[in-house]
Amino acid sequence: MKHAAGRNTELTLAIDAMGGDAGPEPVVDGVAFAVAKGLTANFLFFGDEAQLRPLIDRAKGLGGSKIHHTDNVVAMTDKPSHVIRRGHDTSMWRAMTSVKEGQAQAVVSCGNTGALMALSRTQLRMIEGIDRPAVTALWPTPRGRTVVLDVGANVEADENQLVQFAIMGEAFYRALTGVKKPTVGLLNVGAEDLKGHELIRTAARVLREADPDMAFKGFVEGNDISKGTVDVVVTDGFTGNIALKSAEGAARLVGGWVREALRGTINAKFGALFMAPGLRKLKDRIDPSSNNGGVFLGVNGVVVKSHGGANARGVASAVNMAASLARENFRDEVAETVKTVMRRRESITAPADAEQEIKAAAV
Amino acid sequence: MKHAAGRNTELTLAIDAMGGDAGPEPVVDGVAFAVAKGLTANFLFFGDEAQLRPLIDRAKGLGGSKIHHTDNVVAMTDKPSHVIRRGHDTSMWRAMTSVKEGQAQAVVSCGNTGALMALSRTQLRMIEGIDRPAVTALWPTPRGRTVVLDVGANVEADENQLVQFAIMGEAFYRALTGVKKPTVGLLNVGAEDLKGHELIRTAARVLREADPDMAFKGFVEGNDISKGTVDVVVTDGFTGNIALKSAEGAARLVGGWVREALRGTINAKFGALFMAPGLRKLKDRIDPSSNNGGVFLGVNGVVVKSHGGANARGVASAVNMAASLARENFRDEVAETVKTVMRRRESITAPADAEQEIKAAAV
Repeated sequence: MKHAAGRNTELTLAIDAMGGDAGPEPVVDGVAFAVAKGLTANFLFFGDEAQLRPLIDRAKGLGGSKIHHTDNVVAMTDKPSHVIRRGHDTSMWRAMTSVKEGQAQAVVSCGNTGALMALSRTQLRMIEGIDRPAVTALWPTPRGRTVVLDVGANVEADENQLVQFAIMGEAFYRALTGVKKPTVGLLNVGAEDLKGHELIRTAARVLREADPDMAFKGFVEGNDISKGTVDVVVTDGFTGNIALKSAEGAARLVGGWVREALRGTINAKFGALFMAPGLRKLKDRIDPSSNNGGVFLGVNGVVVKSHGGANARGVASAVNMAASLARENFRDEVAETVKTVMRRRESITAPADAEQEIKAAAV
Repeated sequence: MKHAAGRNTELTLAIDAMGGDAGPEPVVDGVAFAVAKGLTANFLFFGDEAQLRPLIDRAKGLGGSKIHHTDNVVAMTDKPSHVIRRGHDTSMWRAMTSVKEGQAQAVVSCGNTGALMALSRTQLRMIEGIDRPAVTALWPTPRGRTVVLDVGANVEADENQLVQFAIMGEAFYRALTGVKKPTVGLLNVGAEDLKGHELIRTAARVLREADPDMAFKGFVEGNDISKGTVDVVVTDGFTGNIALKSAEGAARLVGGWVREALRGTINAKFGALFMAPGLRKLKDRIDPSSNNGGVFLGVNGVVVKSHGGANARGVASAVNMAASLARENFRDEVAETVKTVMRRRESITAPADAEQEIKAAAV
């Protein structure tokens, strides 16, 4: 019922237009870009009206948008605790409040990640049954895209939190892509005799035994992220952040080598002309814009963090992500599944025999 | 004294010629390749003489090599505990024993990693003051190469072990490259309000205060591995393994896209002809052979694990690494530094104020 209603009701997105590295211009342009590509929604822009008005008037398709003027902006250097105490009149705070009060169904911000997370938690609160939020990241693969979570909300996660991340990641992937049964894996190391921390093994057992509806594929390794072995890769925020940044660094390194190869000699430059279409496609693939947007899963509302340095195309990707999630019955689905899995989980206490064997064999 | 003597004494390397994915051929060819490129050493080959004899006779520059016949091979699927109990007549065991007994100064093996680690620990024992071994990996950067350790010997590491890894990594980088003061960083996440685990922060404090001779640069992030921000990146085996494999996966993904761009159209293929020199260089850079070889630091002897699927060029890289380390006074240097740092470390107990502040600010 709610699901069907959600699809038909008009969608309103709250846009924190300030706080990005290059000011509000790429944010407004990004929203306009998403509209030009087919997004249907209303927009509430939060920020400095004097800056926003001309940008919105100039943009196509944003005629029905409203501007909520705010005097202040959360700076990238502001501490989250400071924003919580004194940030009432910032664009980020007001945008979040509009979601809390139901004027908008989702918020997109390019601002300070820590402050956005703190405001999400204090204003929206957590979904019932979820202990902590998790931040998602999208990573390109030959098969499409993989979601990795958590990539930075928590430095540690216990076995129950990993299970909750898996449930949220699965629901997120479904909402984003429409894939009914996304495959899920727990990030681990490969060597048989030292397979992962105890708590990852426990989380795997719980997912296998208490969530039979999930297409849980067990453990995956770091290289499986780029391979696209599973749709959803689950880990704690420390490991996820390091895995993603290591992958980004390596992609940039190889991308730099490619550019060097293309520019090396006159012959190389000449040769590159013939390869223009292939190289354009390559550039698009390496472009992080198409995967921009990290969702704060677990809070009672849709919060999407766009990269502070995102261009219009990147902002459009984040805005589309917010719209996809706001249209789905994400929150109720997650709350329901977590409740069921955690109830079943209580009866899973004894470690499985096979895992004891692996432990005993370790030298 | 010992250092100088080490440089002048003839070097002998023990080669476990069996256990690689493609049998002994790439191993023998790899040793010959290293000799052709200038390596001066004696070689003791361990394995099946019937297979090894013709390969060695055929190869150039291996005339003085000796073969120690063994009847058995450690299989990739053998459990380390099984090898420890029943592996006395394997090529891996005998090669390790030759280092233990001083007939060789280093061992290189393409075989089962877990078994090689178990044999290293039981036969060679640990360097005084080192709790656990760490496995190194080399990663290419625009500046040269970065060493990452531990990449898989231990799933967890406490603050003292991270300090020991840093000391070993620094000495390893110096031995390998001749750089007198390699820079060292601890792998962490970036967000200010959730900076890493308590134990990483403690390890940073100990390195800063108790090892003033080290060029310690504090925390680095995942993308710093490929950037080459520091020479040595220190982390626990779980995080290191996932960081490296994530980076490898991403490099392979981008490499695949490049190949696609080059082969896409007739025009692209034609264009690629003009770029041949640049593309050859690119291929060399992406080729993992040049960075093949993981060293088991912390044991009383030089043990280098070559990838099971390494080609001759990859084996040569591992053999050269073994020779570089065997010629240096690595073990005594590490034991000496660890002793000094750990003595000073005892007086470092109170957490630094700045770090308490960061913790308090976290929401």
